[in-house]
Amino acid sequence: MATPICRQLGIDLPLFAFTHCRDVVVAVSKAGGIGVLGAAKFSPEELDQELTWIDEHIGGRPYGVDILAPATFEGQGTHTDADELRARIPQQHRAFVSDLLAEHGISSAPSDTTRPLVEDGLGERLLEVAFAHPIALVANALGVPPDYMLREAKKSGIPVAALVGAKEHAIKQARAGVDIIVAQGSEAGGHCGEVSTMVLVPEVVDAVAEIADIPVLAAGGIVTGRQMAASIALGAQGVWTGSVWLTTEEAETAPATVAKFLAATSRDTVRSKARTGKYSRQLRSAWTDAWESPNAPSPLPMPLQGLLSEPALRHVDVVAERGEAGARELATYWVGQGVGMMTKVSSAADVVYDFAEDFADAVERTNAAVADEQPVGAGELNR
Amino acid sequence: MATPICRQLGIDLPLFAFTHCRDVVVAVSKAGGIGVLGAAKFSPEELDQELTWIDEHIGGRPYGVDILAPATFEGQGTHTDADELRARIPQQHRAFVSDLLAEHGISSAPSDTTRPLVEDGLGERLLEVAFAHPIALVANALGVPPDYMLREAKKSGIPVAALVGAKEHAIKQARAGVDIIVAQGSEAGGHCGEVSTMVLVPEVVDAVAEIADIPVLAAGGIVTGRQMAASIALGAQGVWTGSVWLTTEEAETAPATVAKFLAATSRDTVRSKARTGKYSRQLRSAWTDAWESPNAPSPLPMPLQGLLSEPALRHVDVVAERGEAGARELATYWVGQGVGMMTKVSSAADVVYDFAEDFADAVERTNAAVADEQPVGAGELNR
Repeated sequence: MATPICRQLGIDLPLFAFTHCRDVVVAVSKAGGIGVLGAAKFSPEELDQELTWIDEHIGGRPYGVDILAPATFEGQGTHTDADELRARIPQQHRAFVSDLLAEHGISSAPSDTTRPLVEDGLGERLLEVAFAHPIALVANALGVPPDYMLREAKKSGIPVAALVGAKEHAIKQARAGVDIIVAQGSEAGGHCGEVSTMVLVPEVVDAVAEIADIPVLAAGGIVTGRQMAASIALGAQGVWTGSVWLTTEEAETAPATVAKFLAATSRDTVRSKARTGKYSRQLRSAWTDAWESPNAPSPLPMPLQGLLSEPALRHVDVVAERGEAGARELATYWVGQGVGMMTKVSSAADVVYDFAEDFADAVERTNAAVADEQPVGAGELNR
Repeated sequence: MATPICRQLGIDLPLFAFTHCRDVVVAVSKAGGIGVLGAAKFSPEELDQELTWIDEHIGGRPYGVDILAPATFEGQGTHTDADELRARIPQQHRAFVSDLLAEHGISSAPSDTTRPLVEDGLGERLLEVAFAHPIALVANALGVPPDYMLREAKKSGIPVAALVGAKEHAIKQARAGVDIIVAQGSEAGGHCGEVSTMVLVPEVVDAVAEIADIPVLAAGGIVTGRQMAASIALGAQGVWTGSVWLTTEEAETAPATVAKFLAATSRDTVRSKARTGKYSRQLRSAWTDAWESPNAPSPLPMPLQGLLSEPALRHVDVVAERGEAGARELATYWVGQGVGMMTKVSSAADVVYDFAEDFADAVERTNAAVADEQPVGAGELNR
C-alpha cells in the first residue's frame, strides 16, 4: 500500500486507529497502521505518562494524539471550574438519572469527581504535552482546530488532522489550513453528523480538491479491509477507525460492554445528544432508551451533559462488572454501526493484518470485475 | 465490466436505474445499464401501455419492472376500495394538511382521486401485465416478495430482485428464494432502513453467501461511478440507483423540485413516515418540517398516509409550477443524500457514460494505491 499519506507518515497501511488505550496505539503502529491516542479523558500529567509509555514501547513507529477542542462549549472563556459547572446541572436532570439508576437496582451514588470533557486552557496544556513527544500527527475530533493548535503544529512541522461530518465543514477546515481531513459519516461511533460515509467521502474529496492538495480519510462504520478499499475507490487516501479497536484484547472496554458489542447488530446503535450534549452514536441500551423517551429532560449543552452522564455510566460499568442485571441493561458506550460486524475478540495486530488481507481481496475482486471490460468503457458500446 | 450479473442479464455495466419514467428506462438500457420501471403509480392498463412503448423503443435491450408489494398494509385482505380507505383518514389529519396548504397560500383543494399505493389484488394484476412483456427482471421494493411473485417468476424463468434495509431481512429474502438482493442503505431516497450503505452491503453480502449464491446490489446514496467501484469492493455485483435519474432530461420530475434538487446539499433530506406511512427519505421542505413539528398528527399507516399526502403534494407541484412561492416552499419528492452531488441536468445516457468513466478512474486509483505494495500484504512487514 502506498497512498501518499503512507509515505508522508511512514506507515505501511493507511489505517488510522483512534483509541483511548496506549496498548492499542502501540500494537497498531507496530503492525503497520498508525495508532492515535484520544487524550480527552487524561489530565496533562496523565497524558505525559501515557505518551512516555508509548515512546518506550512503540519501537520508533509513528503515532498520533487526538485532542478534543470544540469551537464552543458551556463555560468557555470564563475559566469556570468543574464544581461550578456541576452546580449548573438542573435538579430535574439529576433526579432523572438517579431514578433511572434506582429503577435498574442501583441505589449507590456515582462519584462526582469527573473532569469536564472540555475546559478553558485544557486543550493548550494537553497539546503542549503532546508536542514534547515525537508525535507524527495531531488531531481535533470536533470542529475547526483552534488557532493555537494550527500554529504550534506548523511550528513543529506536525500535520494536523480534523474530523468533519459535513462538506461545508470540510471546506472551512481546508481554508483554515488543516493538513488531513477525516470525513466521518453518520454511521460512526462518537460524535457524528447526518450524512453517510458513502456520500460524505466523495463530496468532501471533491470539495477539498478545489481548495488545496489535502488528503482525505474516510471514517464511519469502517471495520474491514473491504471498506478500506471502498474508501480508496471513493477518493480517500485511507481510513480512520475507532469502534473496531474496542473489542480487541488490548482495549480497556468494560467487559459487559464488550459482550454487548459482540452480540449487537448494526441496528443496535443510536445517535443522540444525551451522552455529551452534542450528537454522538452509541450502543442502544436501557440508558439511551430512557433518554429517548418522551418524559426525558432535554440534554444539557457540552460539557454539562457529560458531567451528568459520565460518572453515572462509569458507575454502571462497575456495578455491571459484578454481574448485576439492571446495570448490564443500562451499560453502553460509543460505537458505530460497524458493531454488527464486530463478532469476535482479536489482538489489535490481528485486526491490522485482517484489514490488509481483506483489502487485498477487495482490490482483486474489483479488478476481476473489469477484467474483460471493453477498451473504452462499458457505456461506449452503444453510444 | 463483467460481474456475473452483467453476463446473466446481458448488460454492459451493472447499473440498475429505478425510475417511474419510461424514457429513462429506454435510455439507460440502450446506454449499457438496465432500466427498471417503477409500476406503483400505474393501473394495470397504464402499465401495459408503458411497457408496450418501452418494447417498441428499447431495441431489444433488457429492462425490468418494480412492483410495490408490501407484506402488510391497511385494508389488506378486505378488498377495501379507495373511497372506503379515504374515509378512514381522521378529520385532524385532513385539517392539518388543508391548514398547511392555506398557510402557504394554497386555498384550492387537491383532487381526491388518487389510487392507494397498495391494494388487494393490485400486485398480482400488475405482475400479470409485466410477465406478458419481455422483462428481464422483476423487483419488489418493500419486504419479502409475495408468494405469487416468486411462483410466477420462477415459472417464467425471470429473476426476482428484492430490496432490503437490514441484514435480517436479507437472510429472510434469501431463504424465500429471491434471485437478487438489493441492500439499500439509510441514505437512500424512498423507503429505507437505519443502516448505512457502507455497513449494510458487506454484512448483507456475508450473510447471504452463507445461504446461497445470490448476487447483491448496493443501493443508497449512489450517484457516481466511484461509488459503484466502492460497492464492488464491498462485495456487491453492481448498484441499484434511483435519485440520480430524477434530474435527467428525460425525467418527469416537477420542474420546481428539479431546481430544489440541484441546489440541495446532502444534509437537505429527511427520513420520515409522513409521506407513505413507512419510513422514506425525501427532500426537506416546509411540508416535511411541518410533519416533523411537535403539533403534527402521527402519520397514518400505509396506504392511508399516501392517500392524504399524495394528492396534496401533487397539487402543490401544480401550483409551484405557476411560480407561487408558498407552493415552492412546500414542494418535495423522494430523494437520497446523493442529491448533494446532483448539480446539473444531463441526459440519462450521459449519466450512464459518466458512471462508466468515473468507475474506471476509481479502479485505476485503487490499483495505484497498491502498486508498490509488499508481496504478502502491508501488515506482514512487522509481524
